[in-house]
Amino acid sequence: MADLSTCPPLTRASVLAAHDLIRPFIHRTPVLTNRTIDEFASTPRTAEELQGTPWQITEESTAEKSANPKLRLWFKCENLQRIGAFKARGAFHAVERLKREPGWEASGGFSKGVVTHSSGNHAQALALAARTAGMPAHIVMPEISAAPKVAATRGYGANVVFSGSTAPERLAVADKVMAETGARMVPPYDHPDIILGQGTAGLELQEQVAEAKAAGVTSTATKGAQPTAFLRAPTSAPEPTQNPGLDAIMTPCGGGGLLAGTVLSAQGTGIRVFGAEPSLDGADDCTRGLARGKRIEAVSSLTIADGLRTPVGVHNWAVLTGDTPEGKGQGVHGVYAVGEDQIRAALRLLLERMKLVVEPSSAVPLAVVLFNEEFRRRVEKEAGPEGWDLGIVLSGGNVSLEGFSKLFPS
Amino acid sequence: MADLSTCPPLTRASVLAAHDLIRPFIHRTPVLTNRTIDEFASTPRTAEELQGTPWQITEESTAEKSANPKLRLWFKCENLQRIGAFKARGAFHAVERLKREPGWEASGGFSKGVVTHSSGNHAQALALAARTAGMPAHIVMPEISAAPKVAATRGYGANVVFSGSTAPERLAVADKVMAETGARMVPPYDHPDIILGQGTAGLELQEQVAEAKAAGVTSTATKGAQPTAFLRAPTSAPEPTQNPGLDAIMTPCGGGGLLAGTVLSAQGTGIRVFGAEPSLDGADDCTRGLARGKRIEAVSSLTIADGLRTPVGVHNWAVLTGDTPEGKGQGVHGVYAVGEDQIRAALRLLLERMKLVVEPSSAVPLAVVLFNEEFRRRVEKEAGPEGWDLGIVLSGGNVSLEGFSKLFPS
Repeated sequence: MADLSTCPPLTRASVLAAHDLIRPFIHRTPVLTNRTIDEFASTPRTAEELQGTPWQITEESTAEKSANPKLRLWFKCENLQRIGAFKARGAFHAVERLKREPGWEASGGFSKGVVTHSSGNHAQALALAARTAGMPAHIVMPEISAAPKVAATRGYGANVVFSGSTAPERLAVADKVMAETGARMVPPYDHPDIILGQGTAGLELQEQVAEAKAAGVTSTATKGAQPTAFLRAPTSAPEPTQNPGLDAIMTPCGGGGLLAGTVLSAQGTGIRVFGAEPSLDGADDCTRGLARGKRIEAVSSLTIADGLRTPVGVHNWAVLTGDTPEGKGQGVHGVYAVGEDQIRAALRLLLERMKLVVEPSSAVPLAVVLFNEEFRRRVEKEAGPEGWDLGIVLSGGNVSLEGFSKLFPS
Repeated sequence: MADLSTCPPLTRASVLAAHDLIRPFIHRTPVLTNRTIDEFASTPRTAEELQGTPWQITEESTAEKSANPKLRLWFKCENLQRIGAFKARGAFHAVERLKREPGWEASGGFSKGVVTHSSGNHAQALALAARTAGMPAHIVMPEISAAPKVAATRGYGANVVFSGSTAPERLAVADKVMAETGARMVPPYDHPDIILGQGTAGLELQEQVAEAKAAGVTSTATKGAQPTAFLRAPTSAPEPTQNPGLDAIMTPCGGGGLLAGTVLSAQGTGIRVFGAEPSLDGADDCTRGLARGKRIEAVSSLTIADGLRTPVGVHNWAVLTGDTPEGKGQGVHGVYAVGEDQIRAALRLLLERMKLVVEPSSAVPLAVVLFNEEFRRRVEKEAGPEGWDLGIVLSGGNVSLEGFSKLFPS
């Protein structure tokens, strides 16, 4: 990991520079639209649909009670990214930055390699990035990690080192590996290089939607999962729109690398950026932290959105709250939370309607868009009858079929 | 359905004409590649992998025993087509042809509409095509049809009429509907208009692969599910190739509409076309029929590839055997069958590696490519060290999550 003192400033320009560095190694993943989901998003929720949520309707008429926003959704398919998740972006960026750090190569950097502690997508992402660069990767994983995850990480050529399950135990083993090998730590989210790398997803999404709209594609021009770049014959002329691309972007928020990077990618563009979290067991740490004006440092939740069980990191928090030297006051526009049933319902739509395999964490933004009445009222109010073109980052697709069987028993 | 006497000849030119007719109504679905699956396809099967198949290895060394073809696979994603399956192509074509039939409109065609018997994708496809054209669709479904399928068909505005489960019972009800309403029958596969419509998938696949290769994209240039149109920066220079596009295409074969249409789409191009079937309970009726030189008229199988439980139709059979006035001797190049375990293994790869939701029927061609040693030896022999660029049509994605839970229990 590049030394903090040598990190580029946390700005949109740095996200653009990160994109130039990693472009040869990552996929420009497609952006898909789906008219059925747009229609559902642009219809007021019924009393039944809001049953059991904080926005439950207890009295008479629904139509007057529930929000009625107009939304056109653009899905950025990072489940089709290398290693099946956006994490490849940050890992490749961290490794490319490290290669360019003065003195790193001369001090034997390529033989010392990198280390991290992760049992998720970051483990595979760093393993792939290190192998591509020709350096070893040491991945500290809890002994209780699922065998397929260990196998997948080893499949990318990494040296898996087992540890206990608690954070201190994992860090202790990582420290030991660093001391023994001289490998550099590449943390999963709490570092400027990681944030800048993840932000490239937001950058591409902005470009791709602007390109699609310039080519006359509207997100609701056709029905079904529709890859914009392949649409040659829109069924109707595009409606005139006020802006050239997106009005807003929403991403999941766990450690906050993707969300913070996306905030940076939108600086100065006028595009609003929102985060989405699970509410179960206090996994909505970012929402709560923003409300009380202080980062929440620990989370313990068993939400099905297992990629979002971590608290927001320190650097990530600074970006989200607009508390960086270069981004004063330009933080996230809002973070919203939803319950497990709503995440499951959104996940079902992505799988059954869009025919995309995504992780439960990836369904959280769509769940907010469909079921969080607070967010929906905000869109109704701020966007008016024109509505918004809203980009959603589908963060990853690494789930086993047996995992789905548990979520949707037959 | 257009009268048989007015149908265009079964040629590639007619598939091109069909494409012009339906282009405003269908998606040009993406073509994806996946390096991991290419590598697996281009590696000899082990004794364990062939266990329980007709190609089981009982003696010593595996490497000498199993086939070693080189394959670059291009997946045409008809699971992202409207209504979630290629069937939209045939249905829109049948309806567009009907609209152009002399005298049809004057005789009240638009108010009489269309009728079919189907509980699968054709039901939804015809319902959508009819609604788009502004005519009623009467869909005869067995009383025992799953409630979600009935709801989906009604969701496209169709009038669902229930019948008994046997073929004669369904036909009797359809006849009654025709007599009462004057609606025209649009059968699911056994008709020239349907065959020509389905063939447009093969046509697009040929175009898209040729475009991608011209742009310097090789199917193995990058890892992971990779949409060709979005790949701007291949990680390596393309290898020189002898042909401008595909060497071969493989599709599933049930009633034979998609396979026959694909055969027509490849006429005169030099591209070989293959079919893939399940072998369980004699569902490999096309393979067996070709071997004995006579169409098999009935199939009764409970294969998980439930879209492929029907025997090949009469018109379809004529095309596949090269027994049409215009296509003499230009039939299918071969049809191959695989067992249930192999279909399941291929389905898992498509879901877990390519992150695509597909029906079990869609996995049958990949299962043949990976596990049918007869086909693999043929590729090894005919393609040599150059290997083949092989297109595979992923036919549809209409499966419920509960359906997957039954296939892959947790």
